[in-house]
Amino acid sequence: MTDIMPDIMDGIDILISEVGPRDGLQSVQSIMRTDAKKAWIKAEAEAGVREIEVGSFVPPKLLPQLADTGEIVQYARTIPGLQVAVLVPNFKGAENAIAAGAHKLTLPLSVSETHSQANLKKTHAQVLEEVEKIAELIKFQPVENRPHFEGGLSTAFGCTLEGHVPQAKVIEMAERLIALGCDEVGLADTTGYANPVQVKQLVTGIWAAVGRDKLTGIHLHNTRGQGLANVMAALDIGLCTLDSSLGGLGGCPFAPGASGNIITEDLVFLLDSMGLKTGIDMEKLMTVQDVLKESIPGEELYGFTPDAGLPKGYVQAVHGGSGWGHAASKLAAE
Amino acid sequence: MTDIMPDIMDGIDILISEVGPRDGLQSVQSIMRTDAKKAWIKAEAEAGVREIEVGSFVPPKLLPQLADTGEIVQYARTIPGLQVAVLVPNFKGAENAIAAGAHKLTLPLSVSETHSQANLKKTHAQVLEEVEKIAELIKFQPVENRPHFEGGLSTAFGCTLEGHVPQAKVIEMAERLIALGCDEVGLADTTGYANPVQVKQLVTGIWAAVGRDKLTGIHLHNTRGQGLANVMAALDIGLCTLDSSLGGLGGCPFAPGASGNIITEDLVFLLDSMGLKTGIDMEKLMTVQDVLKESIPGEELYGFTPDAGLPKGYVQAVHGGSGWGHAASKLAAE
Repeated sequence: MTDIMPDIMDGIDILISEVGPRDGLQSVQSIMRTDAKKAWIKAEAEAGVREIEVGSFVPPKLLPQLADTGEIVQYARTIPGLQVAVLVPNFKGAENAIAAGAHKLTLPLSVSETHSQANLKKTHAQVLEEVEKIAELIKFQPVENRPHFEGGLSTAFGCTLEGHVPQAKVIEMAERLIALGCDEVGLADTTGYANPVQVKQLVTGIWAAVGRDKLTGIHLHNTRGQGLANVMAALDIGLCTLDSSLGGLGGCPFAPGASGNIITEDLVFLLDSMGLKTGIDMEKLMTVQDVLKESIPGEELYGFTPDAGLPKGYVQAVHGGSGWGHAASKLAAE
Repeated sequence: MTDIMPDIMDGIDILISEVGPRDGLQSVQSIMRTDAKKAWIKAEAEAGVREIEVGSFVPPKLLPQLADTGEIVQYARTIPGLQVAVLVPNFKGAENAIAAGAHKLTLPLSVSETHSQANLKKTHAQVLEEVEKIAELIKFQPVENRPHFEGGLSTAFGCTLEGHVPQAKVIEMAERLIALGCDEVGLADTTGYANPVQVKQLVTGIWAAVGRDKLTGIHLHNTRGQGLANVMAALDIGLCTLDSSLGGLGGCPFAPGASGNIITEDLVFLLDSMGLKTGIDMEKLMTVQDVLKESIPGEELYGFTPDAGLPKGYVQAVHGGSGWGHAASKLAAE
């Protein structure tokens, strides 16, 4: 079954999926104006970001920050080459997402059932029922309106309520999501519990169960400072989609309980300096924070790389220059 | 030639070398009382840290924070199983370090000669002359007073003044340091420019030139948030000594120009959750910051792990429990 995903991997090694407009904004109190959201998405797409999770189709009462998700999706769809992703908590959200024209829908399933019941007020059976209904809905869409459907395995590396989450349980849930019609599963370290050994083991386990093409991305947090170490494990094993949030929006790394997404700027700097192509222009990316500073001035932004600045003499691979990573590669021949 | 280094690698996989009392304190304005320094070193050794760089034998006029290094070395030498390391900028410093009884002397050589002249007011030739004199001095010490002598290759990954630092230059300097009598060389990312590809290439290049046993450790910074990603590369290639600073003392990760050492707590958490033994008790380590909070209250401390806390159900390997890393390892069999 084909869907409407654009060919966004063309010419790149790693896809950065920007989750700030969804994960970042849902974690802060400020409500960003719709035009500012559009400016953010436009600026980030212009910097070369090819996938943005632009919002979540949750009831506006729960998350007024994301009440304009329909309009944002429609706007984002006008940007060429941008894959427009959204979160959907249930069937109703999926209907709205499809109506708005989202390329990709992610329904989060918390592998820790305690967490699922506490946060989503749903058992696994109830969530899986929604998944099945959404998969059916998508199957009968005309091809030009058929989104990619991802089942997001959240709390996959541990849970703040249950603690240890058995790998066997994560794999079982991955199998069920695929069996019910998800095109793909995603792994999320919702709680910042993941370590690099675990990342490799869990990915390998899921691949063995559902196939390598059914898991390509990971959503890592930096809650305990381990974000980019876990990215190294993800790269090592061959994952090619990494979620991150511009300016670390929505998670003060030094505040307990914060979401603590990986910072997009630091992640792109890492990948680029290793010689991995993301298609993102680092200097342009570093200016996108300005939109956030103006529109939600009360919210703190983070980023080691934005604050420290780029290294002296740094030439980015994306510009066709030698690149820092390329320079490193060339050094071997010196 | 044997020296006085204790057998600190016994029973561990990775040696954490705490540099806070030297690198951390030299980067802050506060002067920590001598008794507080002793309490810090004692508490950290009791948590299981086996090597601490306790100070630097620089002129007190330049760094009054470290004027008591002689007394600190003497105190630290009374702690069983602790390797006492110091920085020495020159021959005079080495004499003082040996007189005080330091186990390990590191003389930093900035591979960027511009940086060497700007920071140390010395050309490479002048630094190498000091190295030769120090090596001679050490050679003629009685065995019970013969320290391990490391040549530290600073700005090895790039320089804030010169930008790119050629790998060939780093290797050449490593060869000269070993030829002049250093027991070992160390690699330091003084500027926070390193990336994981570069770490592997540079280590491989130096190993090929001087032998694998002549380079075992690396001093990484987190200036651009890349610290633990670079640690992953260092582990992958087989380095076994990693420098870090408790509470990130001496470097605000969000302030330009800060040293930005890797945070000891976050590093130990990473290693332990991967199942790598450091001999350090994570919970005890997390309490050591208290000494700093009391004695230099004006200085900011950092640490994702201390702020977020340990994961629910986390049992550390060092306690003989299952460990988070061990749990991860066990998961594969589920």
